[in-house]
Amino acid sequence: MTPLDQMLLWFELYSLQERYISVLDNDQLEAWPELFTADGHYEIVPKENADAGLPMGIIYCNNQGMMRDRILSTREANLYEPQTYRHLVSGLIITPADQGMVKMSANYVVIRTNQEGDSIIYQAGRYEDQVINTAEGWRYRSKRAIYDTLRVPTLMAIPV
Amino acid sequence: MTPLDQMLLWFELYSLQERYISVLDNDQLEAWPELFTADGHYEIVPKENADAGLPMGIIYCNNQGMMRDRILSTREANLYEPQTYRHLVSGLIITPADQGMVKMSANYVVIRTNQEGDSIIYQAGRYEDQVINTAEGWRYRSKRAIYDTLRVPTLMAIPV
Amino acid sequence: MTPLDQMLLWFELYSLQERYISVLDNDQLEAWPELFTADGHYEIVPKENADAGLPMGIIYCNNQGMMRDRILSTREANLYEPQTYRHLVSGLIITPADQGMVKMSANYVVIRTNQEGDSIIYQAGRYEDQVINTAEGWRYRSKRAIYDTLRVPTLMAIPV
Repeated sequence: MTPLDQMLLWFELYSLQERYISVLDNDQLEAWPELFTADGHYEIVPKENADAGLPMGIIYCNNQGMMRDRILSTREANLYEPQTYRHLVSGLIITPADQGMVKMSANYVVIRTNQEGDSIIYQAGRYEDQVINTAEGWRYRSKRAIYDTLRVPTLMAIPV
Repeated sequence: MTPLDQMLLWFELYSLQERYISVLDNDQLEAWPELFTADGHYEIVPKENADAGLPMGIIYCNNQGMMRDRILSTREANLYEPQTYRHLVSGLIITPADQGMVKMSANYVVIRTNQEGDSIIYQAGRYEDQVINTAEGWRYRSKRAIYDTLRVPTLMAIPV
Repeated sequence: MTPLDQMLLWFELYSLQERYISVLDNDQLEAWPELFTADGHYEIVPKENADAGLPMGIIYCNNQGMMRDRILSTREANLYEPQTYRHLVSGLIITPADQGMVKMSANYVVIRTNQEGDSIIYQAGRYEDQVINTAEGWRYRSKRAIYDTLRVPTLMAIPV
């Protein structure tokens, strides 16, 4: 690839990541599953499990339908305390792999503000993603949020 | 627009945002009003007001002259405790609108370090901006900092 | 330079910065010295010293060999408590200088998670870098991490 082609590829994948953050942080949760392929996987997993090769995450969706159900029940149940997330992302590394698939990894930190207006570091970690180009543009085939922080409740309503 | 043109537009607007952060965090406050048009607006507003459609912000400048006055009085009065800001920004979304105006939104988090060297999450929120291209390059016609965090004193000397 | 050339230069330097963050945060410490030139400098210095023109930093490596030694002793001594860093960077400003050298500055914030899973703001500050283009690509000839936060222990095993 020429430097220009590399930059154009980077820009498309970076834009996907920026959009991912934006829909989660601005109450557009219904747009979240649409950033995945129909057979896309989503997982939140503690770093110690990921480092040990244990695939057990605390949240696991193995297709887009499960993601839509998750958002639907979040909206209906309305169990969670009102809160606002602000994702910050840095250190994006892109590695082209086989059959048009591209691997991405990046640091993320989520700042959460509760109803009282207190802002805390809610979760730090890294994303490990696999993306492919579809007729609708680049989509996640797999996204893993591997978190360092233990301040993560098992009942998490909003994806990270 | 071709993908290349989209990327070039993104780069110009992203660079404006990086420069905005840089002047605030590196004691170049006099350069801050110059990033706005002469009739530019600047506002800091709590999220609950913004969500409710209430326009009342805690800081409001409705032209570049008011911004210059603000910086001048900050420098002269010197009332505020010495502190350092570090802005972090992610999730930039660009939406072209009418008459050459472009809308931008992004997450921001400001880390503040006081004279004792304590660093805290000072403010998390999102920017909602309107920018236009001028003879001097892209400038803010309107910039709103909509904050989630309530740890925001009413007397804020430095813009966010 | 044309806008496209400016963006291509930016992309190369931005990618160097993203890679710098990535190797530190993902336990690839041996790759860290390779991002510098053989005669590269690395320094961590408190903001008050930098502002006063005092060159005294708390860590100083004045060539790549010293950096490799530092990483080697970190690995062997294994004195430090297991911890994970997540660097966040924003506000990158690029300024071409003489003889092909380019100056870079950016905000950084490091979130550290200890073995108990607590995530804190470990260090906020700014990078001031000098980079040059080599046969292997852009490399740091000098990198200064100028920190605002006083919560910085004098025994720091991992570079920032």
